[in-house]
Amino acid sequence: MNLILELANYIGIIAFAISGSMKGIKKGMDLLGVLVLGFSTALGGGITADILLGIKPPTNLVYLPYPLTALIASFLTFLFYKIFANVGKPLLYADAIGLGAFTASGASLAYSIDPSPLLVIMIGTITAVGGGVIRDILSNEVPVILTREFYATAVIIGSGIYFLLRYEGESNYYDIIISFLITTVLRIIAMKLKWELPKVINT
Amino acid sequence: MNLILELANYIGIIAFAISGSMKGIKKGMDLLGVLVLGFSTALGGGITADILLGIKPPTNLVYLPYPLTALIASFLTFLFYKIFANVGKPLLYADAIGLGAFTASGASLAYSIDPSPLLVIMIGTITAVGGGVIRDILSNEVPVILTREFYATAVIIGSGIYFLLRYEGESNYYDIIISFLITTVLRIIAMKLKWELPKVINT
Amino acid sequence: MNLILELANYIGIIAFAISGSMKGIKKGMDLLGVLVLGFSTALGGGITADILLGIKPPTNLVYLPYPLTALIASFLTFLFYKIFANVGKPLLYADAIGLGAFTASGASLAYSIDPSPLLVIMIGTITAVGGGVIRDILSNEVPVILTREFYATAVIIGSGIYFLLRYEGESNYYDIIISFLITTVLRIIAMKLKWELPKVINT
Repeated sequence: MNLILELANYIGIIAFAISGSMKGIKKGMDLLGVLVLGFSTALGGGITADILLGIKPPTNLVYLPYPLTALIASFLTFLFYKIFANVGKPLLYADAIGLGAFTASGASLAYSIDPSPLLVIMIGTITAVGGGVIRDILSNEVPVILTREFYATAVIIGSGIYFLLRYEGESNYYDIIISFLITTVLRIIAMKLKWELPKVINT
Repeated sequence: MNLILELANYIGIIAFAISGSMKGIKKGMDLLGVLVLGFSTALGGGITADILLGIKPPTNLVYLPYPLTALIASFLTFLFYKIFANVGKPLLYADAIGLGAFTASGASLAYSIDPSPLLVIMIGTITAVGGGVIRDILSNEVPVILTREFYATAVIIGSGIYFLLRYEGESNYYDIIISFLITTVLRIIAMKLKWELPKVINT
Repeated sequence: MNLILELANYIGIIAFAISGSMKGIKKGMDLLGVLVLGFSTALGGGITADILLGIKPPTNLVYLPYPLTALIASFLTFLFYKIFANVGKPLLYADAIGLGAFTASGASLAYSIDPSPLLVIMIGTITAVGGGVIRDILSNEVPVILTREFYATAVIIGSGIYFLLRYEGESNYYDIIISFLITTVLRIIAMKLKWELPKVINT
């Protein structure tokens, strides 16, 4: 129904699947591992959100277009790794578009089940960054979103704005678009300006 | 309704959130990572238990006082890290109190859903130590409860005692208090006497 | 009802519990850690599948024979580690039998809940290999099924064949047996012939 969001979701699935499968290749995984990492990075956040919301079985395991897109993108990354490894910047923009789309999708789904502010922010965030956390755990690394860059913070802000707009009775169509755009634009600005969150100087 | 348990639960949330956020700081995480680790350590066990019991959305994501307590404790740890890093002993006692409270809360919740002995023990244990396991996995370490100290064992005993008392038809009010006290006291004795479980001498 | 599958399931639980507890011993875990690793390796895949399918509480936490088998096998491994460490080949066959049985059990359960091809393959796979992934994550290692050997691939093929047979209206009794046998035989052939999946040569 929301064509812009749907298109952005597909861009996100492809960008996340490429990011996951490239990590798998770098870690020396075989074809199966690369497909699993691509799939988990693209769809693991949404599956976790569905588990928390009690949607069973998770949509990403029964509605075929999303998982097929993730698997095909991962397989193509496996086949043409050297090409994908040099794409660089366009991939970062696609990732930012996906981040915004996943945020708005997750926040909207959570609101429709229980309009609690914390739940909306948590589910928006898990939908958008949960896949990357699973990717890093399967790669035996500390999740990158916990250590640097302004990434999940854009998602938290975008989810919070979605809650506020929806709570104020705006049209859900525009709530979704605004939340999506704010998240994506914040992430892109953060990349350009190399924003970082503070750390404790631990001497 | 059970004020003692409720108070002990808050002590536990604060102690667990501090333990999680201090681990995040030690691992060089940024503010977001520190908040995520504090939140997960304090509430991740209860959320996992809710998922297993089919309580959706998990209570810790919709009932605000627990998550707010965890986030505020984590934020204060971030701000005043050097002070918290030197608290030491009182924090260990607070941790033991939380351990007992989480055990009794989890075991009691599981019993109300399905009075199976294994379920009660598993859910009591996951509620109490699941957060610490998530903290260690996010920190890319082997969960400390699997390798040393008499920690989860106190929880298993406390959950088992809760099951036996409740099964024998005692008042649930006292079942909860007794299970809480036994777990906490066992854990404190184990600290004092430096109890360890046996290991295979692997030469 | 399906005695062959039931027997094979027990063989699998024992073989998986031994594999998990041996990994725990090698990692220097104490008795509790060894029991947790044995239990998770044997039953963690089925528990994860139940969570995804919305079966609550998970069968493996309320129906006692499976968890008791896993815990006893893990405890015996702890006591007689040196004997178990030298079993070698028979254990690999028992593991292959378990792999097939878990695949057929998981695929059949998923089909009964939602006859979607992706769901059947995903749940069959998670039931069979999810425990091993949990074992490796708790051991702070990259899951071995993602990096080498023809292991999960046998499970994916076996789950897919189960879906096709069931979809074509065969008797579920034989569908299960055929899916079980194909998965187990494929895995044994893969061991004998040292099959590997392709990798990207990452220079």
